[in-house]
Amino acid sequence: MRMTQGWGLTSDSTDLQQIPIERRELREDDIAVRIDYCGVCHSDLHAIHGMVGKPVDGLVPGHEFTGTVQAVGTGVTALGVGDKVAVGTLVDSCGVCAMCQAGQENFCYEYPVSTYGGKDRLDGTVTKGGYSREYVLREKFAYRLPDGLDPAAAAPLMCAGITMWEPLRSVGIGPGSQVAVAGLGGLGHLGVKLAVALGAEVTVLSRSPEKASDARELGATGLLVTTDETQLAKASGRFDLILDTIAGPHDLRPLFRMLALEGTLSVLGYPREVPVNIIDLVFGRKKLSSSGTGGRKYTAEMLAFAAEHGITADIELLPSAQVNEALTRLEKGDARYRFVLDLADLG
Amino acid sequence: MRMTQGWGLTSDSTDLQQIPIERRELREDDIAVRIDYCGVCHSDLHAIHGMVGKPVDGLVPGHEFTGTVQAVGTGVTALGVGDKVAVGTLVDSCGVCAMCQAGQENFCYEYPVSTYGGKDRLDGTVTKGGYSREYVLREKFAYRLPDGLDPAAAAPLMCAGITMWEPLRSVGIGPGSQVAVAGLGGLGHLGVKLAVALGAEVTVLSRSPEKASDARELGATGLLVTTDETQLAKASGRFDLILDTIAGPHDLRPLFRMLALEGTLSVLGYPREVPVNIIDLVFGRKKLSSSGTGGRKYTAEMLAFAAEHGITADIELLPSAQVNEALTRLEKGDARYRFVLDLADLG
Repeated sequence: MRMTQGWGLTSDSTDLQQIPIERRELREDDIAVRIDYCGVCHSDLHAIHGMVGKPVDGLVPGHEFTGTVQAVGTGVTALGVGDKVAVGTLVDSCGVCAMCQAGQENFCYEYPVSTYGGKDRLDGTVTKGGYSREYVLREKFAYRLPDGLDPAAAAPLMCAGITMWEPLRSVGIGPGSQVAVAGLGGLGHLGVKLAVALGAEVTVLSRSPEKASDARELGATGLLVTTDETQLAKASGRFDLILDTIAGPHDLRPLFRMLALEGTLSVLGYPREVPVNIIDLVFGRKKLSSSGTGGRKYTAEMLAFAAEHGITADIELLPSAQVNEALTRLEKGDARYRFVLDLADLG
Repeated sequence: MRMTQGWGLTSDSTDLQQIPIERRELREDDIAVRIDYCGVCHSDLHAIHGMVGKPVDGLVPGHEFTGTVQAVGTGVTALGVGDKVAVGTLVDSCGVCAMCQAGQENFCYEYPVSTYGGKDRLDGTVTKGGYSREYVLREKFAYRLPDGLDPAAAAPLMCAGITMWEPLRSVGIGPGSQVAVAGLGGLGHLGVKLAVALGAEVTVLSRSPEKASDARELGATGLLVTTDETQLAKASGRFDLILDTIAGPHDLRPLFRMLALEGTLSVLGYPREVPVNIIDLVFGRKKLSSSGTGGRKYTAEMLAFAAEHGITADIELLPSAQVNEALTRLEKGDARYRFVLDLADLG
């Protein structure tokens, strides 16, 4: 076993503690990555809170990280020691189902192996995430980090970034497209940047008019205040795609009204049960959809696009020892726009 | 005024009675159509039942009919007396909004003028439908009935047919596509025929295994029994499009599971509020959509396609005096697959 350090749940408290973590010895196609930076994702919060009252299992969150290859298995060909890499939300998949064959390992019919809380396909051990100093994974689920992307600010591309990229790509957003982004957080701010770089005209939807300057700084043409009926009415039938990153329950009807002919509302921040009135989809043949991260092909494509356009997340970098502070502030909505942990303090 | 006869509501009963109907004198761009055949649509039933307890206003249903041009206004150029035409669910629209400009007058932002129960854009009178011997409308909302299509069996193309055509067309169904049709009634049986003619492999989804031979007669490769968990599991991830024509409330989750990557569930038979679990859309980036009839461009396209492939509805033709029997039997589900009224008995 390879020993490393990380931040995990050790008691019934939601506070993470520094703990030793075992990583497997390298298999033929494995690499060991020294984790330099790991983003703090909203789903990490859900995972931690989801463990309260359950038997302590040493949950270690973290599924968007960048680092440096430290060792490679005997069969590894594409990566070498010293290479900078990025890793996202999945570290393995069956490789043979229709989804894997389509480059959508994130939708693997045997369920992709999540970067944390997943089950290794060979030995059945539970995966532990990127809030740690080292990770061991199959080389094919690590992506070479393109030159020119800041490794700390690039880490959130691997979950938040690809989650925005996939609906943008699949809808075919480009010059002339009208895109709206509802919610301006970790997901939303990358949605704005990516959509703008694709050539779309981008509008931020928010209850807070004071976010208008932030929206414009990110490249949006403006902000539409969703509590203002006049502004909503003016935007009726306007958007080809709405990236809805709002985390809590909210009414989808005003969003449907703003969709253009065959427009798509992609609900990405609240994957729960919602009431949908089908009649809201009839006029304009509108679509309700969702998505979740991305497979190898499109993650690599997104990284290349981000490098070409100089896109990374706007982050606040904290030593990993401040992980609990980061989680508490994220929960309060006090993140602008993504916390990233610097794992150097773990040695 | 031009006087004709039709079948309308005259009391608090849901039974239609023969009544005199006034049609407007022809405007410059109007035509008068002698209605030969009018289909009986499920929404006619809804309209009739929706009037119970309300002030009697002489509702005359019927929005899928074929007939013969009897007179033309002074500015009519495309049609002449004696021409066979078909008319659907809309008889006017604003003509200038983005939807009208896109050939989707059915989604006109000023709301299209429905063939019955709509309000004429010029004089504000309430439109009365095709359960009658004559109709007066703008020529641009009448379509030349292609040669070779039986006028009685073609009538249901104008609502049921175009309602199936539009999702098939917009999803891009063609050779190699996998299409499912849930519910084998007036809508569904035309969905099967059109999808088969487009080159798709078509499966009927039904609770009734005894409908398998009907499904195959219509061109489907087979029937999947939706109460059979083994069959459902086998079809997981299979369909690019499910045309869901089921009229009552039903669980959408088994349908979502059968969608392929980026597949679409088009709910066409039940435009009400339904609970949707967004997580069912995440894996596979699946889409929930709907649609409603079609605009001029695509209705004409559908008619040409139907003529090319010899597609009409399977109908039971009844003298219009039996309209109440047709409605009662439709309500009971005793239609195979569409009732069409022969208006010749109105003189």
